[in-house]
Amino acid sequence: MTPLKLAIAGLGTVGAGVVLALAERRAEISERAGCAFEIVAVSARDKNKKRGCALEGVPWTDDPVSLARSDADVIVELIGGEDGAAYALARAALNAKKHLVTANKALLATHGAELAALAEENGVTLRFEAAAAGGIPIVKALRESFIGYGVHTVRGILNGTCNYILTQMEASGLDFTDVLAEAQRLGFAEADPELDVGGGDTAHKLALLSSLAFGVKPGLAHIGVQGIRHITFEDIGFAREFGYRIKLLGVARQTPLGLSQRVQPAMVKRGTPLAEVEGAFNAVVADVGAAGPFFFEGRGAGRAPTASAVIADLVDVARGTAGPAFGIPAAALKAVKAPPPDAHRSAFYLRFTVLDEPGVLAEIARRLADSHVSIESMIQRGRAPGEPVSIVMITHEAPEPHVSDALKAIAASDKVLGSPTMIPMEEG
Amino acid sequence: MTPLKLAIAGLGTVGAGVVLALAERRAEISERAGCAFEIVAVSARDKNKKRGCALEGVPWTDDPVSLARSDADVIVELIGGEDGAAYALARAALNAKKHLVTANKALLATHGAELAALAEENGVTLRFEAAAAGGIPIVKALRESFIGYGVHTVRGILNGTCNYILTQMEASGLDFTDVLAEAQRLGFAEADPELDVGGGDTAHKLALLSSLAFGVKPGLAHIGVQGIRHITFEDIGFAREFGYRIKLLGVARQTPLGLSQRVQPAMVKRGTPLAEVEGAFNAVVADVGAAGPFFFEGRGAGRAPTASAVIADLVDVARGTAGPAFGIPAAALKAVKAPPPDAHRSAFYLRFTVLDEPGVLAEIARRLADSHVSIESMIQRGRAPGEPVSIVMITHEAPEPHVSDALKAIAASDKVLGSPTMIPMEEG
Repeated sequence: MTPLKLAIAGLGTVGAGVVLALAERRAEISERAGCAFEIVAVSARDKNKKRGCALEGVPWTDDPVSLARSDADVIVELIGGEDGAAYALARAALNAKKHLVTANKALLATHGAELAALAEENGVTLRFEAAAAGGIPIVKALRESFIGYGVHTVRGILNGTCNYILTQMEASGLDFTDVLAEAQRLGFAEADPELDVGGGDTAHKLALLSSLAFGVKPGLAHIGVQGIRHITFEDIGFAREFGYRIKLLGVARQTPLGLSQRVQPAMVKRGTPLAEVEGAFNAVVADVGAAGPFFFEGRGAGRAPTASAVIADLVDVARGTAGPAFGIPAAALKAVKAPPPDAHRSAFYLRFTVLDEPGVLAEIARRLADSHVSIESMIQRGRAPGEPVSIVMITHEAPEPHVSDALKAIAASDKVLGSPTMIPMEEG
Repeated sequence: MTPLKLAIAGLGTVGAGVVLALAERRAEISERAGCAFEIVAVSARDKNKKRGCALEGVPWTDDPVSLARSDADVIVELIGGEDGAAYALARAALNAKKHLVTANKALLATHGAELAALAEENGVTLRFEAAAAGGIPIVKALRESFIGYGVHTVRGILNGTCNYILTQMEASGLDFTDVLAEAQRLGFAEADPELDVGGGDTAHKLALLSSLAFGVKPGLAHIGVQGIRHITFEDIGFAREFGYRIKLLGVARQTPLGLSQRVQPAMVKRGTPLAEVEGAFNAVVADVGAAGPFFFEGRGAGRAPTASAVIADLVDVARGTAGPAFGIPAAALKAVKAPPPDAHRSAFYLRFTVLDEPGVLAEIARRLADSHVSIESMIQRGRAPGEPVSIVMITHEAPEPHVSDALKAIAASDKVLGSPTMIPMEEG
């Protein structure tokens, strides 16, 4: 049988992993794919870097975009970045009628609808299992497995760095900056961690899952994003007292007023699946009407999980599994209709740092009552006499703007120090 | 676009669910599938039964096998049973070059390799997502998603009835027979529960997962099967004290000496994913070398989860996803090579009921030592004076036949009452 010819752009940890796995399990992979894979061209910045994978005799180029002119049947794009070479190569590859397999969440969250349309116009396949939740086959599941009843909500832990940091904060009692520094030292966080800890990476992935689940154009415009920098060990400790853990979640939820998409730290009840996801693991819950929920957990990053997802896509391409990239034809992908801000209702964890003076609690309670926010449970804890006191409460469900308004009024009080902390409660 | 024509054999809870979901989400499903579905014939025992689904004008037959002569493109087999009408219809359908979608684990565990070969000979697709773990897309994942690194172990909770019973035993403190009776009253267990509680249903499903994961012919011959009838509340209570829960697991593990396949109750450490699966849920862990483990959890039975899986298969057929049924060509499926019995090593939970007399513990300890089985931890608990005493221990890892031999010798002692209980420890 004719081998399927691959050109690989980007030979970092994932690209080298793909090359290695294709070589090490050549026979098994060919049997599953129905054909062999042959690497006919590669591109990377540094030709001389040690990668531990044999690429002797494989044509090398410094210009990734030129791979679109190779005789490859499939381009594997592992360069990264939403624009630049990755975008240029993706367009050129599809226009040259080459299948495209990519791990690039930023590219697809930004240009996914356009590239999906381009793939359809050219009669080729665009696949991106590795772009969200690494080796977990959630892209395939949302595209192909829940069609009978439809997805109502997708929520997940999609960034291993953040989950590692939050897990370590809980385990060590250290605050965000200390744990981040340690994570960077150990290689669990990038030198520039902003895309991870700021929530942007989770937003990219949520945009893809949301598109697959709800048939909307992938995009970041309607995703509210908050990272984890403001989470303190104190919050994590109080969460534990209330029976919760704090997790950075991406949540996309179909509501009567539109598709709500949010990335933010949330309080998740201990014992629910997402609350128990530890360390750098990723996990996704899909609510599928009467058929669900379904829960998936696994490694979301790193060489093997990501290369595993890339190879699954390559086998799909080899098998001729040629459905549309986001599950429905690109032309049918709808624009996101976001619900109005005051439609977002949730229960909230609130923490105030206050001067230990008579009337403080009364003032906070009154402001919340003025905004029609009612309190479900509360902890007040003194420190040493004269020192600031933490007042922590969990509210009943209320519209988010009501709670925000109350917090603004409360923050203005001279008895309240700093900004109150507000973390939504979320299903796990 | 031409609709894909379906004939449905069996209109029980799942069949009616498929008909209903196809009607209720007609537009969404057609968009995902790339074509409409049209039901052109149905077959069931009782034409007049109320099913809550509209089938007016659809040709009806009492003879399911005759559906193979209809003008359907796809036969949906929901009759059940490993032989009889289901097997006859499956063969006739494939020979008539019709795609076959089935939820029938017994059929495929027995005749899977033959039917897969028949599908290939006739150039049609055989799909069975609903046959294992209901709505969880584990069949697809094992067939398509873990190819790059390969599966080392699959282990799962594959029977919701057993997991419900074990969960309820723990929650209620009642013994097996009482909880089973209650489960039957509530409709969570069949009037004849043997296939579930005896482990046979789990074995059927394990045979399928094992075939998909390891490229072997599905079959029951090499699966050791033990059910849950012998599990007492006392065992569940001791498990809790040691930090474990008892779960009926199907485990298929590639070992250097062969493919080990077992269905049996196992002690699973609290806090691991499988230990925390509650009630009628199903769950599967796939160890995928450096890329894994991956964990999947969801509803394993009932109308919506099963119909959801059937519809996913129908969409695959519509999209032309035509890979082999078990992931590799039927001719390449290997016979199972089982490891020799003494290759099976495990740590074990052991419970002895003994007369409270001097020397009993010494005798048990000596017999275990004679068989080279060493003890990791132990609980001895007296009841009222003169009454029998439970001695419970967890061993270090040892070959299973060594432990069995020791137990036989111990059971022969006149100070030991009844048969000792032996439950392996398993990863969760």
